[in-house]
Amino acid sequence: MAATFNDLQDAFVFELRDTLSAEKQILKALPKMTKAASSSDLKKAFEKHHKETQEHVQRIESALGSLQESVRAHECEGIKGLLKEGEEIIEANAESEVSDALLIAAAQKVEHYEIATYGTLCTWGELLGFDDAVDYLKRNLGEEKHADEKLTQVAEKVNANA
Amino acid sequence: MAATFNDLQDAFVFELRDTLSAEKQILKALPKMTKAASSSDLKKAFEKHHKETQEHVQRIESALGSLQESVRAHECEGIKGLLKEGEEIIEANAESEVSDALLIAAAQKVEHYEIATYGTLCTWGELLGFDDAVDYLKRNLGEEKHADEKLTQVAEKVNANA
Repeated sequence: MAATFNDLQDAFVFELRDTLSAEKQILKALPKMTKAASSSDLKKAFEKHHKETQEHVQRIESALGSLQESVRAHECEGIKGLLKEGEEIIEANAESEVSDALLIAAAQKVEHYEIATYGTLCTWGELLGFDDAVDYLKRNLGEEKHADEKLTQVAEKVNANA
Repeated sequence: MAATFNDLQDAFVFELRDTLSAEKQILKALPKMTKAASSSDLKKAFEKHHKETQEHVQRIESALGSLQESVRAHECEGIKGLLKEGEEIIEANAESEVSDALLIAAAQKVEHYEIATYGTLCTWGELLGFDDAVDYLKRNLGEEKHADEKLTQVAEKVNANA
């Protein structure tokens, strides 16, 4: 059934529910990516981001709660496609360093997806005056940016060996 | 069948073919997004990016050609999911300004996907010494970044009316 949007608040809640689904899908994918990684730095980066992602889910639930909205997720098609790419890499026959380089590339696409999403959500939330929700979302945005930078650092070592 | 990667060059060619598919899918989606947009600024931004995307396809084909690789595309699952989100917005029942705000959000996720992809490709291409390919890819990267900035500008007007 087609969704209905009467105002920006409807769009904001829709995107929050989409992002809740995205973070939950990422939460399931990260242990598989950690297992597939060879570099200990990469394993550590994925493990750390798994813990952060647990908090991201809780913060989105808190943001929905601050608007008296139910914490229902709306299946996020975007992240589903991105995570399929990660699985393709895990299943591939690849030298360990090359596989790590590909895993980082897939993970950085996911990070950029989230950076774009939280950027939009923060802008809309500020316009709507939803300060509590924006506070939660800004913390998630900061951690996604930091995770992306960390992956770039790890990639420098991995790429040089690939 | 699972892909095989013996070295970083295999990964580079794989990502190029994936990105070729992504750009071709975006090329098909942009006219639908242009038609769905209400704001004339947004229509113009999508039209301009459609022209750029035609060049992006050609540049990726040139990059593959510079490596004596065939211009075969590898179906990009990531962008498929992202474009599904755009279609969901087009089919939704939404006030025109809210629909525009959602279209911009969907388009910026696509831009960020491409920024991450071209970032990885440029890094790998430089390491591999594929200067001609990197030259093509850097031009695509620059235009994607610029398209993202343009959408942020258009969003400021659109969001204020939504």
